[in-house]
Amino acid sequence: MAVIRILGIDPGLAVTGYGLIEKDGSHLAYIASGRIRSREASTLPLRLAALLAGLAEVIDGFHPGEVAVEEVFVNVNPKSTLLLGQARGAAISAAVLAKLPVAEYTAMQIKQAVVGNGHARKEQVQEMVKRLLKLPVAPGPDASDALACAICHAHGGLGMGAIVTRGRRVKRGRLS
Amino acid sequence: MAVIRILGIDPGLAVTGYGLIEKDGSHLAYIASGRIRSREASTLPLRLAALLAGLAEVIDGFHPGEVAVEEVFVNVNPKSTLLLGQARGAAISAAVLAKLPVAEYTAMQIKQAVVGNGHARKEQVQEMVKRLLKLPVAPGPDASDALACAICHAHGGLGMGAIVTRGRRVKRGRLS
Repeated sequence: MAVIRILGIDPGLAVTGYGLIEKDGSHLAYIASGRIRSREASTLPLRLAALLAGLAEVIDGFHPGEVAVEEVFVNVNPKSTLLLGQARGAAISAAVLAKLPVAEYTAMQIKQAVVGNGHARKEQVQEMVKRLLKLPVAPGPDASDALACAICHAHGGLGMGAIVTRGRRVKRGRLS
Repeated sequence: MAVIRILGIDPGLAVTGYGLIEKDGSHLAYIASGRIRSREASTLPLRLAALLAGLAEVIDGFHPGEVAVEEVFVNVNPKSTLLLGQARGAAISAAVLAKLPVAEYTAMQIKQAVVGNGHARKEQVQEMVKRLLKLPVAPGPDASDALACAICHAHGGLGMGAIVTRGRRVKRGRLS
């Protein structure tokens, strides 16, 4: 089976998390993760430009074959929702400009896939990302959410069953 | 004074209007206008890809020096707001990828600048765009809004005073 390199993106207007993993059959390997900051830019177009440039650099540097983007939270504040939507539009733009296929997952799908519970807390996601990718420490929350999105995509958003191999099982979000 | 070519954009997820004008001192000239449809694409990333490709074609074909983008309407439906935000994010992405400066104007600023009334109706905007750019017929609503945005930018969003020259004045949105 071909090795697939997946870029997960957790879009935000101030900080966008990204995470790259490789899927080889049922094995997942960590490649890289980090955050793109656009807080410093003074206008929305400059923020989107920083986000586009940052993601283009990640794509050029790591050559993912597929992209998974987290659906952003519909905020109670419509202005925030609009701003977040624009960041997400720019993030998807960066991917489609690189001719990469883009899949979308809701936060609930991602939590369900990674923790086994669609309502898991952020720390549970971080802990499971650390364990599933065999990292020495949990990545920061933005990178962790992006990696979780990539993991969700790696097994087609199908839930924990597809990830956990070698006799381990998941109970209430923990590997046993 | 240098001639400045301005691309106005009225972003939408199904249809994005665009309009190009040239500003030579206080004189404005119509260059082109039209609409980019992305309704046919089946997923959001494909729609944004169609929008990006369409705007890239317009930018490559007409070489604007500056871009003006209309602020999108904050809808009562947060999902619509989020979708519209993503279209706007992609539209701004197309401009910043071409290294063009992007200015933003609210619908009220545009109406104030073009009609002299921030609460003008769509038909009044179409009629004034036709008259200001000496067009034989009024452009369609999407192209008209985009041209109005470009006109607003052409005089720095400063209101009718800056546009109307040669002894004409504006009364309640009409040139006299």
